[in-house]
Amino acid sequence: MPRSFVNDAARGNIERDVTPEQRAVEDTLVEKVVQSFDRTPDPRLKQVMVSLVKHLHSFIRDVRLTEAEWGAAIDFLTQAGHITDDVRQEFVLLSDVLGASMQTININNTAYQDATEATVFGPFFVEDSPRVELGGDVAFGAPGEACWVEGSVTDTGGLPVPGARIEVWEADEEGLYDVQYDAGKRSGRGHLYTDTNGDYRFWALTPTPYPIPDDGPVGQMLATVGRSPLRASHLHFMVAHEGWRTLVTHIFPAGDAILWDDSVFGVKQSLIKEFEQQPVGTPTPDGRTIDGTWSRVRFDIVLAPTEA
Amino acid sequence: MPRSFVNDAARGNIERDVTPEQRAVEDTLVEKVVQSFDRTPDPRLKQVMVSLVKHLHSFIRDVRLTEAEWGAAIDFLTQAGHITDDVRQEFVLLSDVLGASMQTININNTAYQDATEATVFGPFFVEDSPRVELGGDVAFGAPGEACWVEGSVTDTGGLPVPGARIEVWEADEEGLYDVQYDAGKRSGRGHLYTDTNGDYRFWALTPTPYPIPDDGPVGQMLATVGRSPLRASHLHFMVAHEGWRTLVTHIFPAGDAILWDDSVFGVKQSLIKEFEQQPVGTPTPDGRTIDGTWSRVRFDIVLAPTEA
Repeated sequence: MPRSFVNDAARGNIERDVTPEQRAVEDTLVEKVVQSFDRTPDPRLKQVMVSLVKHLHSFIRDVRLTEAEWGAAIDFLTQAGHITDDVRQEFVLLSDVLGASMQTININNTAYQDATEATVFGPFFVEDSPRVELGGDVAFGAPGEACWVEGSVTDTGGLPVPGARIEVWEADEEGLYDVQYDAGKRSGRGHLYTDTNGDYRFWALTPTPYPIPDDGPVGQMLATVGRSPLRASHLHFMVAHEGWRTLVTHIFPAGDAILWDDSVFGVKQSLIKEFEQQPVGTPTPDGRTIDGTWSRVRFDIVLAPTEA
Repeated sequence: MPRSFVNDAARGNIERDVTPEQRAVEDTLVEKVVQSFDRTPDPRLKQVMVSLVKHLHSFIRDVRLTEAEWGAAIDFLTQAGHITDDVRQEFVLLSDVLGASMQTININNTAYQDATEATVFGPFFVEDSPRVELGGDVAFGAPGEACWVEGSVTDTGGLPVPGARIEVWEADEEGLYDVQYDAGKRSGRGHLYTDTNGDYRFWALTPTPYPIPDDGPVGQMLATVGRSPLRASHLHFMVAHEGWRTLVTHIFPAGDAILWDDSVFGVKQSLIKEFEQQPVGTPTPDGRTIDGTWSRVRFDIVLAPTEA
């Protein structure tokens, strides 16, 4: 049988510790499982399943998985399934903390000229965010320091993209998204459209670090391996317009303490922005009166074409 | 960074389709995720998590997983979690149909002299089976053809193992285990102990083929890829005695139609046994009166020592 899928590290282990007879037993099983997908009508599904089987078996053989560890994995997945509901998605968290979400984003959003980079989607997007007008406030009463966000949406040739839909969402200063308080609550999120010049502006909250929900099996796993559940402070963007590749990204405040220790590996250098702190009494761009400090940030967004 | 974990097949794809810059982005992410486990206190857990991350990322990169496929995987796991309860274990089924259960069994039950081979545990074992005396009937009224099962338990030196606990369980002729009718029902299962000569005997049902539970996401996946959910007919055994490796196995009737198409890859040549059909009126070994046909099988069990 072809054994090219047995990676070097795994083969190293296998050849060191395992007899040729045992290796043959294990190879034969992989071959049988792969062949069971021979009649898959969809060639892409067949390709994905065969690759999944090969890598899954390579993992099991590489670490010589014990039956107790197999049982712990079944229990982990069961607990993840049971805590997951309409607003809590433990499998997305699992994918996030293993870097699988970010790797999928990387693969599907390859660099295109100077187009803005993508990052993880996360589990807190909901479809029915409120619409705000340009200059409106997406906080909707969520607690935190006010933040003025402005910028432009252009294509990679520098031409403005009017009418682009900008969706934004973020945690409040307590570290919680609206849906974590109440599945129906909507605050700290909204959508708006760029003007005829491709420009946009809105009020939001200065992002603060927060832990991913860590009261489930993923949080327990992070604690067991000595990892922090904290995410770097960020503001989510999803920018869409027909003819351009939908951009799912965040911006991160420069100087944030968690920047290079983000629990979901979402930070990219190009997405770190200066959130300029404004002292008490600094006049706002739109004449809004604010008690206390506020911040402002500029984020110019460049969209790649759909075919990129 | 070391790239030895990128398997040949994956590297082939990557080198063909992906620019060096893109490959560097993907490699860097894998390296960051691996490093996030640097502070794991338990070295074995660290080894398992690092290997899992490397193989998971290799899979994602190998197939160039799309965001829609990633979403389908999250939905699949979510559905599997929601159908799983105390008596339905969809994650075990998933592991079974991907051959992961059987591979784990292979790894942890390497061949030892002439010790009986192990096979998959399956999702239908329960702890509190009824005890039966030697020669008793584990069917407890479950429908099916009566089957006389007898044999010995010895060590690999041929010495008898008296007092070994033999746990057996099986589906009825409708293809269902007791717990699939009612979580609290107990039939088609029992446990007994070998006598002073290491011998055992009991009545059970002649095994028949049945589908694994296929009304959930695993069943839907099998249908989509053109695979049958049927398991080869079998009778489960778990044989335990202090000082010997606990044996989890099945026996399979020779000539069964599903033998080489078992949906969980559990069949091994050495576990195929002659279930001899007995015509109506054939006297039974213990004088029991049976209306109709019955069958009989001999299964001599050889246990490996714990340290094997």
